Amino acid sequence: MTETSALLTDFYQLTMLQAYFEQGMTERAVFELLVRRMPGRRSFLMAAGLEQAIDYLEGLRFGEWELEYMAKSGRFSRDFVDRMSQLRFTGDVHAMPEGSVFFADEPILRVSAPLPEAQLVETRLINILHYQSLIASKGARVAISAPGRLLVDFGLRRAHGAEAGVFAARAAYIAGMSGTSNVLAGAMYGIPVYGTMAHSFIEAHEDEESAFVAFARSHPGNVALLLDTYDTEAAARKVVSLAPKLTQSGITIRAVRLNSGNHAQHARAVRLILNDGGLPDVRIFASGGLDEHDVAALLAASVPIDGFGVGTRLVTSSDVPALDCAYKLMEYAGRPRHKRSEEKATWPGAKQVYRKMGTGGLMLHDTIALAREAWPDDSALLVPVMAGGKRVSSPPTLAEIRQHAQGQLQALPEPLRTLGRTHAYSVKISHGLLNLAKELFAGAPLPSGAKE
Amino acid sequence: MTETSALLTDFYQLTMLQAYFEQGMTERAVFELLVRRMPGRRSFLMAAGLEQAIDYLEGLRFGEWELEYMAKSGRFSRDFVDRMSQLRFTGDVHAMPEGSVFFADEPILRVSAPLPEAQLVETRLINILHYQSLIASKGARVAISAPGRLLVDFGLRRAHGAEAGVFAARAAYIAGMSGTSNVLAGAMYGIPVYGTMAHSFIEAHEDEESAFVAFARSHPGNVALLLDTYDTEAAARKVVSLAPKLTQSGITIRAVRLNSGNHAQHARAVRLILNDGGLPDVRIFASGGLDEHDVAALLAASVPIDGFGVGTRLVTSSDVPALDCAYKLMEYAGRPRHKRSEEKATWPGAKQVYRKMGTGGLMLHDTIALAREAWPDDSALLVPVMAGGKRVSSPPTLAEIRQHAQGQLQALPEPLRTLGRTHAYSVKISHGLLNLAKELFAGAPLPSGAKE
Repeated sequence: MTETSALLTDFYQLTMLQAYFEQGMTERAVFELLVRRMPGRRSFLMAAGLEQAIDYLEGLRFGEWELEYMAKSGRFSRDFVDRMSQLRFTGDVHAMPEGSVFFADEPILRVSAPLPEAQLVETRLINILHYQSLIASKGARVAISAPGRLLVDFGLRRAHGAEAGVFAARAAYIAGMSGTSNVLAGAMYGIPVYGTMAHSFIEAHEDEESAFVAFARSHPGNVALLLDTYDTEAAARKVVSLAPKLTQSGITIRAVRLNSGNHAQHARAVRLILNDGGLPDVRIFASGGLDEHDVAALLAASVPIDGFGVGTRLVTSSDVPALDCAYKLMEYAGRPRHKRSEEKATWPGAKQVYRKMGTGGLMLHDTIALAREAWPDDSALLVPVMAGGKRVSSPPTLAEIRQHAQGQLQALPEPLRTLGRTHAYSVKISHGLLNLAKELFAGAPLPSGAKE
Repeated sequence: MTETSALLTDFYQLTMLQAYFEQGMTERAVFELLVRRMPGRRSFLMAAGLEQAIDYLEGLRFGEWELEYMAKSGRFSRDFVDRMSQLRFTGDVHAMPEGSVFFADEPILRVSAPLPEAQLVETRLINILHYQSLIASKGARVAISAPGRLLVDFGLRRAHGAEAGVFAARAAYIAGMSGTSNVLAGAMYGIPVYGTMAHSFIEAHEDEESAFVAFARSHPGNVALLLDTYDTEAAARKVVSLAPKLTQSGITIRAVRLNSGNHAQHARAVRLILNDGGLPDVRIFASGGLDEHDVAALLAASVPIDGFGVGTRLVTSSDVPALDCAYKLMEYAGRPRHKRSEEKATWPGAKQVYRKMGTGGLMLHDTIALAREAWPDDSALLVPVMAGGKRVSSPPTLAEIRQHAQGQLQALPEPLRTLGRTHAYSVKISHGLLNLAKELFAGAPLPSGAKE
């Protein structure tokens, strides 16, 4: 219920709406959703969450109990509450496809709708798109850190609530990770689901060996054994001694997991024990407090780890737990609008983003222009996704979104793929947009971060 | 749906359950939920989320579509899927009341139930209790930073999904903040809801003054005007010139809000303008990227701000975006269990926490003991909350929880209330627990962080 209630919004949206309706301010407004500044520690961002945003807009309505709450609160007029019972989202939406790489100041979504509708949806649109884009941006870094390895989202338990766990699994998968431990995300979106056993499983048994055997017999097709409950290397030797007996029962041990201690040291020792024991095909999987820097360092040091579980630091985006994401009024009643607040000024007018590609398929630079400006090529990143409150086409599959994301990461200039240092990408401002801004700002400082 | 699905769990819980059932391992297990290490930047933690945890346990069941997903996945036996259709939580739960202050190694919740039930609920119990405790711990710091001021959660838009927004509002209110901008949290929990207008409201109007007037007429009882859309001090002068006209219509301006720039400088200038204009009772409210350190610094410098909106950095707990929270098997079939993994060892056995209070009502130290140890006083922090899968008493009101939290914060020794530096609180280990650990660990390093 939480996720679909029309009351999942800031109170000020409702107070503003009442005033808009009273004044008859229902002409068309254009709002854009953007990140105002690149966060430290990110050279690019990746858009995600659009499908859930569209679902929200299509399903938006105030139900009985929501209207009753508003009426009883004593803070709204009867007329307004009645009007809200009729409210639907009837607007048009342009957006960057999910999985698109984007940068500061670039709108990733543009809403054009009667002012009250376009205003009301601000909070939940940011709530959905900010978080999924945050995690796709982090997940893309994890994907870059370990090409070709198994990379699994393990974050559900320390994600910030239920929806965060599900959204994180989705966004990380879009960005190129292999799957998730989150069963619900698997069931809802068809994401591959991974997992075998926890320490408690080992501890509940009388000894480690009987736990390993019991698990293998129960899940003969999915045997990955957890080694670090008591003594990692001793457990690896138990795996070696068990393997022949299991093989006789037709069961193959696929992998072992390390979840604590010095991963490099344990993985090397375990690899030797497994190899010496005739188990060179058993894969080593590591988890426990990892992020993309840990993963990259382990692989750079040729530590024999075949797959990684990345949890808390992925789903909380722990080094950058939020983006400076905003949803800003750009036009009302056909006239450009703007804000000049210190350090928060935004480029005015309804906009479009164009991307110039170089030879070799790498990105050269982007240009933010007015939507109404003529443009010499067809590289527009914002495409129509809703018209008159309805989807304009059937949604892409998650596989298609994932493929788009992969193409985007392949088109990143190499410096932007570096994990340790951030690099700036060139985002230009069109002449048309710059001239409009100069006119409107009348000498006040222009928005920073972009150059002509 | 996301929040209530039994599939909101890690896949390994289900694989372990199948193996447990196959082996008839359904004897009683005791699990405890704890934070293993104090995070940097926190001298104490505050428990929250228990009511939602109990709701989850009472409502746990696999519905039609969840069973169908499991059956179709091809990864579970038919027997197991059938058995899951019958699964309910039938266990006993002890927990610290919400709003309780706690420290590393102290269980805040103890589950005693047949092993499969106790195991299955791990993921979602952590997901609920970790996040709400994370935000209550942060919110308590915000409350400490500004005693007696209006402190409003503004975080919904950048919270990590829908449930995070609602849980954050609840946890922050428990911890002592005044309310939230989140309408749904207000409707669900009865939390006071705040808000007036955004910059877009001003920008949509032809000029700032007509926006102010329109808002005031629409919400005569709730007039707080946003000053920083164009020029903060100029806007304050407009407020002064408007006030007499509004007073003639019986409308009083209650407050103004500053959301950007140098808060100290603007608040001082605006206060002077308002005072000189005969509006000494108009309150100044500040928001925009604030955390408890900013709030404390502004008040320490006697900046005339009467209330604060705290958003992103509260609901993401941006300086500590996760706690090292775990749910560990402590007993199975009447025997203590433990884990010795490096740096993740846990104290064995079913435990209780006792708190020694000093004269003046301040906390002296805590002791973690075995639940079965006799204890000379009645200061046990873990109390029964569920028996046989049902609540043992009707839930406390949010007001009662909030009052308990306030009492807890008042009992904190002064160094622990310091925001800038962390201080350690004494958490002892009872003789009984220490002896059990020495016996079980047989020379391996004991869990760190607590001393006898």
